[in-house]
Amino acid sequence: MSATTNLENISIVLVRTKTPGNIGSIARCMMNMGLSRLILVRPTEYKNSEALRMAAGAHEILEKAEVFQTLEEAIAGHGLVYGTTRQVGGYRRNKLMTSREAAERTVPLLSQNRVAIVFGREVNGLDNEDIALCHELISIPSSDAFPSLNLSHALMVVAYDLFMAAGAKLPPLKQEKLADAAELEGFYEHLENIIVDIRYFNKQNPKHIMVAFRQIFGRARLDEREVRILRGLLSHIEEAIGSKDEAEHPLQ
Amino acid sequence: MSATTNLENISIVLVRTKTPGNIGSIARCMMNMGLSRLILVRPTEYKNSEALRMAAGAHEILEKAEVFQTLEEAIAGHGLVYGTTRQVGGYRRNKLMTSREAAERTVPLLSQNRVAIVFGREVNGLDNEDIALCHELISIPSSDAFPSLNLSHALMVVAYDLFMAAGAKLPPLKQEKLADAAELEGFYEHLENIIVDIRYFNKQNPKHIMVAFRQIFGRARLDEREVRILRGLLSHIEEAIGSKDEAEHPLQ
Repeated sequence: MSATTNLENISIVLVRTKTPGNIGSIARCMMNMGLSRLILVRPTEYKNSEALRMAAGAHEILEKAEVFQTLEEAIAGHGLVYGTTRQVGGYRRNKLMTSREAAERTVPLLSQNRVAIVFGREVNGLDNEDIALCHELISIPSSDAFPSLNLSHALMVVAYDLFMAAGAKLPPLKQEKLADAAELEGFYEHLENIIVDIRYFNKQNPKHIMVAFRQIFGRARLDEREVRILRGLLSHIEEAIGSKDEAEHPLQ
Repeated sequence: MSATTNLENISIVLVRTKTPGNIGSIARCMMNMGLSRLILVRPTEYKNSEALRMAAGAHEILEKAEVFQTLEEAIAGHGLVYGTTRQVGGYRRNKLMTSREAAERTVPLLSQNRVAIVFGREVNGLDNEDIALCHELISIPSSDAFPSLNLSHALMVVAYDLFMAAGAKLPPLKQEKLADAAELEGFYEHLENIIVDIRYFNKQNPKHIMVAFRQIFGRARLDEREVRILRGLLSHIEEAIGSKDEAEHPLQ
């Protein structure tokens, strides 16, 4: 959510994508991650029922997609053009960066520049003529055992990295106020009294067990409501002990 | 590639996933990102042709998938159980973290612990009973305009963050040796001589234009081969100028 500054200056460019479902999925992923500009170079059919089904609520991105016959026309007007590749050819030396590195370098440029990110065909990726038109190359780290990502999932990773680099955060949670130190100390004192009553302490060092409880509840970062719930529990334990004590006392 | 230390201790748990294609896609994404353990709670059919097609080369993950009837059985043996959610209920306070935060906190635990990441149904996600079994909750930041991610794309983001947090890198490039400072200075001197010959300098400050060229070629981080190519170009320019000079000299 939020902080999608200037992401409208990013164009996703798909070169000769074959599967309409992939284009639909990509539209959805783009919209999930605050991207809006889709450019298609010689696509197959991309507004059929499969594409629309995969796009889910993002069909407006398909509707607005621009179509070109060549990559050169598609990227005109973009100051920076990234190609995506999983192949590491010799001549591509020192231009290959990870998706995350590229995202971090790209976001500061977006206030003044349009940036294109180019994805090739499903199986063969970008061919060498297309690669030559790209200014820099991006690759996504993946397992040696099976490095080949589906096109829409590769797009998702790149779009997600851009969205995060643009400062995306989760919406703020409605929080209760954390219990303050006095409330916590009241709770620990209450707990310690019960521990003494039920004789659950180390006789050599009665405070020792309390250190463990302080660590447990400290990590839990209790709020005021939770302290009330815990003290309610302690009070009920006291009552239960108390009635037991009263029953036992006459025997002493 | 590489550095997938202990990722085998992560289980992806899918609760009542409806679409076999999603399960297949998830198997592929898992294998792309070095994950291998898939647990299914009351799935629909998940080894049909659609699932296998979407799994591409990752069908072994489908073959090895464990199936349980309840989430409680599925997560037994896991020291940390994350639920994934896009809903922010009041009682979930201070347990919600981003996928990236969760990944960074999880990887150090994997040497001693199995960790489960639980994904709910395609449309409704995890229900409250399932959420109650999770120790912490993960959410993926997404656009207010269309926050709903496809299940397999949500899995991809979480798996990618884990893979990156585990230290995944691109394979090292075969690099030529960068040109050293003496080689670069030889090139700049050569270039400056030509600039003087063709009178392309600022007369008040002849060195000024060289500052721009030094910045351009400095950013390009030239290797030895590239310096040879550039000096070859300069030599051919000199020859072309020279023959022009020779043609002109007789007239002087």
